[in-house]
Amino acid sequence: MEQKLMNSRDNSLLARANKVVPNGVWGHMATRAIGPGYPQFFSRSEGCRVWDVDGNAYIDFMCAWGPNVLGYKHDEVDRAALERIAIGDISNGPTEQMVELAETLVDTIEYADWALFQKNGTDATTTCVTIARAATGKRKVLVARGAYHGAVPWCSPSLVGVTTEDRAHLVQFEYNDIASLDEAVAQAGDDLAAIMLTAFRHDVNRDQEMPEEAFLKHARSVCDRKGAALILDDVRAGFRLDVRGSWARYGVKPDLGAYSKAIANGWPLAAVAGSRSMLEGAAKIFVTGSFWYGSAAMAAALKTIEILRTTDALAHTEAMGQRFRDGLDEIATRHGFQLSQTGPVQMPMIRFQGDEDLTFANTFCAAALRHGIYLHPRHNMFLCAAHQPADIDRALEAADAAMRETRQSLG
Amino acid sequence: MEQKLMNSRDNSLLARANKVVPNGVWGHMATRAIGPGYPQFFSRSEGCRVWDVDGNAYIDFMCAWGPNVLGYKHDEVDRAALERIAIGDISNGPTEQMVELAETLVDTIEYADWALFQKNGTDATTTCVTIARAATGKRKVLVARGAYHGAVPWCSPSLVGVTTEDRAHLVQFEYNDIASLDEAVAQAGDDLAAIMLTAFRHDVNRDQEMPEEAFLKHARSVCDRKGAALILDDVRAGFRLDVRGSWARYGVKPDLGAYSKAIANGWPLAAVAGSRSMLEGAAKIFVTGSFWYGSAAMAAALKTIEILRTTDALAHTEAMGQRFRDGLDEIATRHGFQLSQTGPVQMPMIRFQGDEDLTFANTFCAAALRHGIYLHPRHNMFLCAAHQPADIDRALEAADAAMRETRQSLG
Repeated sequence: MEQKLMNSRDNSLLARANKVVPNGVWGHMATRAIGPGYPQFFSRSEGCRVWDVDGNAYIDFMCAWGPNVLGYKHDEVDRAALERIAIGDISNGPTEQMVELAETLVDTIEYADWALFQKNGTDATTTCVTIARAATGKRKVLVARGAYHGAVPWCSPSLVGVTTEDRAHLVQFEYNDIASLDEAVAQAGDDLAAIMLTAFRHDVNRDQEMPEEAFLKHARSVCDRKGAALILDDVRAGFRLDVRGSWARYGVKPDLGAYSKAIANGWPLAAVAGSRSMLEGAAKIFVTGSFWYGSAAMAAALKTIEILRTTDALAHTEAMGQRFRDGLDEIATRHGFQLSQTGPVQMPMIRFQGDEDLTFANTFCAAALRHGIYLHPRHNMFLCAAHQPADIDRALEAADAAMRETRQSLG
Repeated sequence: MEQKLMNSRDNSLLARANKVVPNGVWGHMATRAIGPGYPQFFSRSEGCRVWDVDGNAYIDFMCAWGPNVLGYKHDEVDRAALERIAIGDISNGPTEQMVELAETLVDTIEYADWALFQKNGTDATTTCVTIARAATGKRKVLVARGAYHGAVPWCSPSLVGVTTEDRAHLVQFEYNDIASLDEAVAQAGDDLAAIMLTAFRHDVNRDQEMPEEAFLKHARSVCDRKGAALILDDVRAGFRLDVRGSWARYGVKPDLGAYSKAIANGWPLAAVAGSRSMLEGAAKIFVTGSFWYGSAAMAAALKTIEILRTTDALAHTEAMGQRFRDGLDEIATRHGFQLSQTGPVQMPMIRFQGDEDLTFANTFCAAALRHGIYLHPRHNMFLCAAHQPADIDRALEAADAAMRETRQSLG
């Protein structure tokens, strides 16, 4: 069952990349930052599987870091997009698909009265901030410490190349901590434009936390009282947890929401959804991009959302996530490990308790790769609707073998 | 020859859009900002033609505002991209196409030693600024007054929703004006990170200006002397004027260049190309996006650049631009108009002399639409390799009729 991973082609591509790309590969998919043993270059993806350039196959639990929600290379979604490409993806303006997609978001996302579209998650979060400032005339934006909202200077996790002024109007607080939020609100004084929150706490290398309903409701009431915008950064979780928006279950409606990743099952698209209170602000700002009206990605989104709304895709994904979590707990216990599995089961974070330096996580994930499953040692993962019980069971067998090897190797 | 434009479907889509999208349509493709008579929604594009949703066809001189360089729906380019989609556009990392494309840019763009990729032109310009700051440890970025470098707070043409701090480290100067540049350099003092310039002066609603060689050489020498980065914003002109980069003909090499639009003939992609001096800075920053490693757009770029390098596509486009410019001049003279036609012929700016309030331009462009050609009254336009002599001649006939009507209507 263990595969001896081939990596000669990966190595040779990386050597070539190192000559013409800074660090060879940049950003969140640079596997040198993940841990040893990870292939860097992929050749193929289908359903819940990815193939690296050496032909090694993996049952995938990263889903392209979120975009894959229905399965890679989903036939219906791709066909909808390809139909538009056969007619003409872009021209001098939007197509009917733009109107249909905005109507669909308004009909689907419970707080949305309007929508507009971009390409990157960062486009959507940045647009939300600009709209909030335009709508309120205020400047301060409150963000949770450690939260990821994108990769441009105002929000990048790195400060290299970033100026102090890029973040002059950010105020930080602790996620789920009302007192901390209140302090930040006090600090913003009469200049509070927005509170921005991820759907749940999904920061890297720590247990995930679902939002506390009382915390969300407090944030909502602060924004109401201060005339500020409550922004839901739903880029990572949107269209995976709940098609109505990730806070629908809490009864808390943001004023603005940022979407991307899963919205078009991998076709490049982002969206801002907003409430009526933000419409005037949204109408005053200028944002644009060369490919933002591309109709293929919009057609893909229309089909993706239709499937999410009319099938049990998300319930199925959740069931698969539960099956994986339960199985892993059983396996870990059998091998004498205690796992901390947190957050939504379909976006699992798996940590070994007491594993501060990630020795166990890295060893386990490297072994899991050799047994044909692609996990991440310290970032939340993603399941998709293409994961079937047989895939989960196969992945659990691999995890069992990887746990055994981890125990043997680390004692 | 005149077509009575149908617009009932356009009107009904706009009415629907107005209910669910701020202003109905946003950004640079919102035609209410262009002038009367422009259709807003398109259904189809092919070669050098676009069709609006009411089925009216136009010979197109906007080329999706730049992305279309070889012709819409270009068979070879699209086939290359579709091959990747059939295998799997995205997964957990880059594909071989990323390496090949970086190698191709290094081999093609004369100053490039490395490259990295994004989705929007604004991604590329913003990344250039971040790299320049990381490489130099300085903060001030000099930009020409009126130049467009994107649509996020640091560079947006609108100040709504933008804070003072977003632009704290920008210093403005006049394009092509050495004394003005020197003043800005003096103002930046010891804190000069970069001088950023568009390929030529292509600001909206004014005559275009090619860069003066002495000005570019001065900018280059200032950057050398101060240890600052010279950034070429080649988003609009790149891969349309000269595949080696738009300044190759001037013998001036920037340190960083931003590309997008035409790079993949309409598939969504952007790129930063850089020199060895910027490699360390580029390796230190963090930028990323969910779809930045999408291999379909990269395959499209590989094929686009191959065609640009191995065929006379760009020379042909220039010849068509010259044919259009010459024909328009002859027609205008015949109708007693004096045109100011400026900039590269394949990116024409056409203005009526003395037409400060755009009355003539708007009347002419609206008439041109009715005669089946899509022009812009105050923004530079774009030709592509799919424009054939017969298309240009047909467009000139339409322009002739439109000029006659403009003369009749305005006297």
